[in-house]
Amino acid sequence: MNVDALLEDFRQGRVTAEEIKRQLTGHSYADAGFARLDHHRLLRKGQPEVVFCQGKTPEHVAHIFHELAQANGRVLGTRAEACHFEAVEDMPGARYDPVSRVLSVVREPVEPVGKVIVVSAGTADLPVAEEAARVAEHLGSRVVRHFDCGVAGIHRFLSVLDDFLDARAVVAVAGMDGALPSVVGGAVAAPVIAVPTSVGYGASFGGLAALLTMLNSCAPGVTVVNIDNGFGAGYMAHVINAQCVAAGKG
Amino acid sequence: MNVDALLEDFRQGRVTAEEIKRQLTGHSYADAGFARLDHHRLLRKGQPEVVFCQGKTPEHVAHIFHELAQANGRVLGTRAEACHFEAVEDMPGARYDPVSRVLSVVREPVEPVGKVIVVSAGTADLPVAEEAARVAEHLGSRVVRHFDCGVAGIHRFLSVLDDFLDARAVVAVAGMDGALPSVVGGAVAAPVIAVPTSVGYGASFGGLAALLTMLNSCAPGVTVVNIDNGFGAGYMAHVINAQCVAAGKG
Amino acid sequence: MNVDALLEDFRQGRVTAEEIKRQLTGHSYADAGFARLDHHRLLRKGQPEVVFCQGKTPEHVAHIFHELAQANGRVLGTRAEACHFEAVEDMPGARYDPVSRVLSVVREPVEPVGKVIVVSAGTADLPVAEEAARVAEHLGSRVVRHFDCGVAGIHRFLSVLDDFLDARAVVAVAGMDGALPSVVGGAVAAPVIAVPTSVGYGASFGGLAALLTMLNSCAPGVTVVNIDNGFGAGYMAHVINAQCVAAGKG
Amino acid sequence: MNVDALLEDFRQGRVTAEEIKRQLTGHSYADAGFARLDHHRLLRKGQPEVVFCQGKTPEHVAHIFHELAQANGRVLGTRAEACHFEAVEDMPGARYDPVSRVLSVVREPVEPVGKVIVVSAGTADLPVAEEAARVAEHLGSRVVRHFDCGVAGIHRFLSVLDDFLDARAVVAVAGMDGALPSVVGGAVAAPVIAVPTSVGYGASFGGLAALLTMLNSCAPGVTVVNIDNGFGAGYMAHVINAQCVAAGKG
Amino acid sequence: MNVDALLEDFRQGRVTAEEIKRQLTGHSYADAGFARLDHHRLLRKGQPEVVFCQGKTPEHVAHIFHELAQANGRVLGTRAEACHFEAVEDMPGARYDPVSRVLSVVREPVEPVGKVIVVSAGTADLPVAEEAARVAEHLGSRVVRHFDCGVAGIHRFLSVLDDFLDARAVVAVAGMDGALPSVVGGAVAAPVIAVPTSVGYGASFGGLAALLTMLNSCAPGVTVVNIDNGFGAGYMAHVINAQCVAAGKG
Amino acid sequence: MNVDALLEDFRQGRVTAEEIKRQLTGHSYADAGFARLDHHRLLRKGQPEVVFCQGKTPEHVAHIFHELAQANGRVLGTRAEACHFEAVEDMPGARYDPVSRVLSVVREPVEPVGKVIVVSAGTADLPVAEEAARVAEHLGSRVVRHFDCGVAGIHRFLSVLDDFLDARAVVAVAGMDGALPSVVGGAVAAPVIAVPTSVGYGASFGGLAALLTMLNSCAPGVTVVNIDNGFGAGYMAHVINAQCVAAGKG
Amino acid sequence: MNVDALLEDFRQGRVTAEEIKRQLTGHSYADAGFARLDHHRLLRKGQPEVVFCQGKTPEHVAHIFHELAQANGRVLGTRAEACHFEAVEDMPGARYDPVSRVLSVVREPVEPVGKVIVVSAGTADLPVAEEAARVAEHLGSRVVRHFDCGVAGIHRFLSVLDDFLDARAVVAVAGMDGALPSVVGGAVAAPVIAVPTSVGYGASFGGLAALLTMLNSCAPGVTVVNIDNGFGAGYMAHVINAQCVAAGKG
Amino acid sequence: MNVDALLEDFRQGRVTAEEIKRQLTGHSYADAGFARLDHHRLLRKGQPEVVFCQGKTPEHVAHIFHELAQANGRVLGTRAEACHFEAVEDMPGARYDPVSRVLSVVREPVEPVGKVIVVSAGTADLPVAEEAARVAEHLGSRVVRHFDCGVAGIHRFLSVLDDFLDARAVVAVAGMDGALPSVVGGAVAAPVIAVPTSVGYGASFGGLAALLTMLNSCAPGVTVVNIDNGFGAGYMAHVINAQCVAAGKG
Repeated sequence: MNVDALLEDFRQGRVTAEEIKRQLTGHSYADAGFARLDHHRLLRKGQPEVVFCQGKTPEHVAHIFHELAQANGRVLGTRAEACHFEAVEDMPGARYDPVSRVLSVVREPVEPVGKVIVVSAGTADLPVAEEAARVAEHLGSRVVRHFDCGVAGIHRFLSVLDDFLDARAVVAVAGMDGALPSVVGGAVAAPVIAVPTSVGYGASFGGLAALLTMLNSCAPGVTVVNIDNGFGAGYMAHVINAQCVAAGKG
Repeated sequence: MNVDALLEDFRQGRVTAEEIKRQLTGHSYADAGFARLDHHRLLRKGQPEVVFCQGKTPEHVAHIFHELAQANGRVLGTRAEACHFEAVEDMPGARYDPVSRVLSVVREPVEPVGKVIVVSAGTADLPVAEEAARVAEHLGSRVVRHFDCGVAGIHRFLSVLDDFLDARAVVAVAGMDGALPSVVGGAVAAPVIAVPTSVGYGASFGGLAALLTMLNSCAPGVTVVNIDNGFGAGYMAHVINAQCVAAGKG
Repeated sequence: MNVDALLEDFRQGRVTAEEIKRQLTGHSYADAGFARLDHHRLLRKGQPEVVFCQGKTPEHVAHIFHELAQANGRVLGTRAEACHFEAVEDMPGARYDPVSRVLSVVREPVEPVGKVIVVSAGTADLPVAEEAARVAEHLGSRVVRHFDCGVAGIHRFLSVLDDFLDARAVVAVAGMDGALPSVVGGAVAAPVIAVPTSVGYGASFGGLAALLTMLNSCAPGVTVVNIDNGFGAGYMAHVINAQCVAAGKG
Repeated sequence: MNVDALLEDFRQGRVTAEEIKRQLTGHSYADAGFARLDHHRLLRKGQPEVVFCQGKTPEHVAHIFHELAQANGRVLGTRAEACHFEAVEDMPGARYDPVSRVLSVVREPVEPVGKVIVVSAGTADLPVAEEAARVAEHLGSRVVRHFDCGVAGIHRFLSVLDDFLDARAVVAVAGMDGALPSVVGGAVAAPVIAVPTSVGYGASFGGLAALLTMLNSCAPGVTVVNIDNGFGAGYMAHVINAQCVAAGKG
Repeated sequence: MNVDALLEDFRQGRVTAEEIKRQLTGHSYADAGFARLDHHRLLRKGQPEVVFCQGKTPEHVAHIFHELAQANGRVLGTRAEACHFEAVEDMPGARYDPVSRVLSVVREPVEPVGKVIVVSAGTADLPVAEEAARVAEHLGSRVVRHFDCGVAGIHRFLSVLDDFLDARAVVAVAGMDGALPSVVGGAVAAPVIAVPTSVGYGASFGGLAALLTMLNSCAPGVTVVNIDNGFGAGYMAHVINAQCVAAGKG
Repeated sequence: MNVDALLEDFRQGRVTAEEIKRQLTGHSYADAGFARLDHHRLLRKGQPEVVFCQGKTPEHVAHIFHELAQANGRVLGTRAEACHFEAVEDMPGARYDPVSRVLSVVREPVEPVGKVIVVSAGTADLPVAEEAARVAEHLGSRVVRHFDCGVAGIHRFLSVLDDFLDARAVVAVAGMDGALPSVVGGAVAAPVIAVPTSVGYGASFGGLAALLTMLNSCAPGVTVVNIDNGFGAGYMAHVINAQCVAAGKG
Repeated sequence: MNVDALLEDFRQGRVTAEEIKRQLTGHSYADAGFARLDHHRLLRKGQPEVVFCQGKTPEHVAHIFHELAQANGRVLGTRAEACHFEAVEDMPGARYDPVSRVLSVVREPVEPVGKVIVVSAGTADLPVAEEAARVAEHLGSRVVRHFDCGVAGIHRFLSVLDDFLDARAVVAVAGMDGALPSVVGGAVAAPVIAVPTSVGYGASFGGLAALLTMLNSCAPGVTVVNIDNGFGAGYMAHVINAQCVAAGKG
Repeated sequence: MNVDALLEDFRQGRVTAEEIKRQLTGHSYADAGFARLDHHRLLRKGQPEVVFCQGKTPEHVAHIFHELAQANGRVLGTRAEACHFEAVEDMPGARYDPVSRVLSVVREPVEPVGKVIVVSAGTADLPVAEEAARVAEHLGSRVVRHFDCGVAGIHRFLSVLDDFLDARAVVAVAGMDGALPSVVGGAVAAPVIAVPTSVGYGASFGGLAALLTMLNSCAPGVTVVNIDNGFGAGYMAHVINAQCVAAGKG
């Protein structure tokens, strides 16, 4: 947003005082009654708002999906249940994955770019790992999955290590001891986003153990998101990946 | 490392069995008696080992600094005290900043590239913010600082918002309520690395409050490092920034 | 209660020794068998007892509602379920809101006074925010709602900032990172009562993250209530608001 | 700030584009190099910035005190040490209380208004209670102190209960079991701001026990601030008190 | 057990070596296969084993009840469900209270002795308070109940204070802020056993808040049991009470 | 206090209205400026106020000691330092034990009565165990000490088990795993007061581990006080012991 | 694995470069699509992979069981439900224990060797204790069970103490106060593996209390596994026991 | 101890009743006034008591060392300071290591047996790792050290992996993320004892992060001791190792 140009337009009478106030203070959103849809986000963040479906009624989700699809041609929803899918099933390009609970509408698929790797420790971490993968894919990244590579059998990770050489971003998902991202972070050059999961029992305290492990990782180049936040990791991985691709094109 | 070529060399007698075993299992390190210096890291990670000075004797730090300087021409130490600086002061290109406790040796400065922004909430967060900034600078990034921009006076951040448009990576540092990264993450497109600090008292519990705030950030594109881990954030920001610059050159 | 006058009355034989003992030690309550209704509270606190319905049988709630309605003409119940409503539905002026779970009996509505604003971060915080709003309304305050104004899109809050200028008290409700009250507290002059909600997952630890954020708020003029305690915030906001209105009338 | 008038001024050429941008985005602060002084705060909050001295050098504190004294005629500093006082001792109207660590500069004293009560549980809570009292006094409130009234001898509080009848706001300070605010909140009509202190040992966990007690208070009309945050409580009490006084004058 | 007499008996051949070994090492218990019933406990503790029914099958509970009833003429079970009652309903003297979940068999009632008071804060604390009362009654104490006396209306407690003068032991039960035992402990001379309950929400953390409050009580003569442990408090109160009664008889 | 008689006295003019108000509301304390001495406590609790010396100046401690010695002939102070002792050293009957930090003034020693046992686990628990012992002794109990009886060598406890048969109350002190009170509680009939200490390291978390162990003790007849609260345990043990002795005399 | 021989084979052309790479980096696993079966584990660890059934579909469990049975002739699954058993019931040698939830396939039973003792505190700890016992038995150890030996009746443990003299490893299982392993560890010479269970309520915090107790055990020769981790303890006990037996045979 | 023989001796008059009571109840200890030395431990545990020097006076340590040296010819002390060493320096065979703080007296060295490996993650973990090593050595084990093998450079561990093949027990020491034991446990067959250290900052919470990581380790054959408890790990490793050696000799 070019403020100087906008002010000049205003002085010339090409835009109204109301418009200029709205633009300058940036209050561009749609009041849906039950929610304020942040249409301004695409400008600020480069991505439209993503819908956190958990706790929302199917009607509300459908309303939001239609509005966002109209504005952007594509919508991403996370933590969706089957009932949410049923409410938008008839929208063109609607898809739902019950494992990762990702719900999406894509009118026109785009070619995936760059390379994001999602690596996970155990089979129980799959829903979170898959959420990360599908979010990055929806946003436009090419994603490679390496699942069930936990450190109790470290050779499983080492055997695929070569594939990490050209990755732009890595998402490393683990529950229980959460040790995988430290090993990954010690072995690869790409930025690693660690995702603790709530997989475990007893002293895993719902993922707290894995979270603390990752925050204390001795390996440089590792950052962390919330427990079970596959979405956040996939989003961040895509942002880093896409930025590189864009720079390469510039 | 090209394993096929290496094996061919071995078959041709150009390298010994010992060498091939050492290379294939990657055990390339220098045993200093009190430590195993990881010379292999530069190959794996694109950066040589960084020295965590806290708890090390000045003699040990000096020993490691000399060895790493000889190998790489530059060394980075964090959490260094004045006594550590005195032990390496006579090395060419040695510098020490007592606020951030960053100790470095740079034989030949390089031109900084890209753009990393370090934004912080309060004046007490300065040591951590400065550590992040100096680490990214040492590794080769151009860094811009925006300090004392806490959300209790949000206009201070909003007034410099334009500067974030072309940043490749943002480090957001805050103690106490740790709210700054959420606001930054909601407003900028670049990847945001949030650093909680131990600044505060009472229910800040040594930075736990700020850490939890950041892990629960509603803004997408925010990841988190350990409390007071300015080094980790600066390292990650540089990795993201440098990757973009490299892609742009490719 | 004028103790000197009372003692004089006693000396003159106008009141009995029993009565004077009861009054002086203030043990004025109704023993309902399963509970001691605190009728003395209206005198002490300016408001009659509010009924926490959770865990009480519909019969007990109905018994208490009838007794309090007779004494005060109005009753407020919180955390009520549909079964509680059914038990008092036939009382004149009974109303129930299933979202906020507020159950009330109002025989004669009064004109709302002053101005309390309830501002909330996300759509999932609505039940708590609505509880705060309805409690303040029941007690007699005029309430304005600004919902879904979280800091991930801070312009949504900034766009309604002007409305806060004449508020007597503000209730700010947020889950997850709990950052909204810090931003509100930094921007408005009225007293801000922050309410953390249990909205979130993983490291939100049932609202602990938001609670700690708010307790550590850098903005002055912010105090905090228990997680999900919309009632407590709405009550406090009304007390502050009503006190001002009364002072203005005096 | 009247945006319409400002825009009209701009159209008429009475203000520059730079000025309008600065005003509209509110970035009114003084960059002191080491800090950004928030001069805009007086407009937003009705009170100028308060200086948290802990961790600042005497030179920085002196610099800020002079700047703020010039702008507002009065300055308030909290958590100040003797060295900070020495750095500003020669400013007219400078005063320092080593118990509460409150440091202030008041060029022209004003008549205190309204009534704030600070009640505390034990003698060890005195520094925090006194901080609350002095902050409210500095800001302009009349303050009455009732110290050492803990619930282990509840008659000490009951004996002064009458004095609470005309208080506009009450600050209740307690460590260890933190039970005092519940008793106060059950007995008085005025808004109660509870302050947990770190007084105690063992399972007091640095004030956590008292903090949790207060957050779970069964008495309505009680809100809580951070452990040892006498400043926050005194500030809030003054805001509520001053608002009433202002309403009474209107 | 008189060891010297026993050894003399052995030397005289009146008891076998096996018996003396069994007695001296005290391994007097009945191996029920799924459990080892501690028949020795009556000798050591003055009370037979109490059955914690939770998690046991009705068959196991019935087996244990029959065995203990035969040995001692009376059995006490805690945390029993209706299904446990049904399994022992036909035993003479069997009784079950669904609120406190106390299940008991008493073949011959005895006259209650001394005086134990159980005082509780809110109506929701009733199940725990009633468990304490019924346990003390079963063991032989006379129990007086004062329920719903929370500190938010402290006059309710003060109005019955006279009744505490001749109590031998007091059980004080409270959830949420857990403040009642501090007030009781400050006002009465008898030993006070504080029981935190899990009543509450949010920052009560399942009774942790009340537990910490009680452990930090400023009033002397207060000790604490586990959250919701009405049994433990009732048992202890009886032991103290019975010991006094016995001393008075000696 | 006979209220009826008092009121009759008042009607007859034998006491003033002021006096009757003071008596009825019980506000009998001495305002020392820095503290309100609770002289009423002896009446309520059977024991005068005990002085928590930690954090008090020697002057304040001396002032309080003189006042309490004059009123009661004996004073007890806990957590006292040598400087506190020096301030009262010249009072007749003053004594100080640097290990337990108990400071006392006893003008006329009395014959100890009954029997309290203090048993402790390790040598490092001695200061807390000794504090419990000396507090009970000061208050009038006969105390027997069995120190260094931890469960890692359980025979040390078993060898003195006979001595527990006629104890009226037992204080069991342990740090680290805190297991001793469970074993003691399983073996003796007297009431057991468990005291966790902060002895330990790592996952003892300052005594939290021992505290939780004790709260979860499977043995009936065990209650718990705060970490390192030897005073509280000794006080409670004396109250139970003295009550029995008094009952025996009645 | 003899690397020199392998390399010689390669030079002689007896193995391919592909094979040598696979062997040297050890990436020997079977990719089942949903999981990577770690066949290499038997070589590394001396035991094949154990299947954690919880959260896996019956189909997946059946697939893995068949594959592992074919490779090793025996399979062990933990935390299995009835549905998992049904999916493998027709495999020869399949057995399921619903209490410990251990599911196993054993084609040819082997003679158990050595001696492992599993001792537990209460009847509610039985599922975890039984899991430990069955795991050690499946792996080949002779196991002796001593259940319901908690410290509240310490004679139950002491009466079987002689049986521990020739044990090679002891598993000690306890919930609530978790005190049993300390007593066992103080009394026996064999290595003790302590297992905290989640049995308890209130301040047991899901087994945290017992876990901390065990980590702080004063008795040497005690190590700890995760809460409810009977598998881990049984596995470790077998490893220690089998190693001794093997050494004795050597 | 043969109870039958002992009883026969008693019947024959060869031992006194006093002696038999002492033996049967096992109360064999030396009362040093300040401590009860557990001479019985050598019989029960196979090792004499180890002296935890921290918090003991040099005089007490010297007294205990002399008594234990006389009884057993060798003494082991942990967490000793230089002052403790000075107090026993003149005993023959006294040695002190200031890094691990191990203090020992060995009159006649014995040949070390078997093989214990101590592997550690970082240089800062050295004191704890060295304590484990020296304790195992003192007790009689042959110990091999592999320090500074953290997972951030996993090749350092992999390069020495062959050395683990014939180890009888492994101690794995790590702070910060505590990931090393999981990798070690996944790669070696010997029992692994994991030791978390307090090395780290921020969210390491004094070693809690590493402790939780290790308790949640996915690798079987890993058990855990308290934070910084090098002694406990070295002791356990020796017990396992020595047991194997003894079995091999039998």
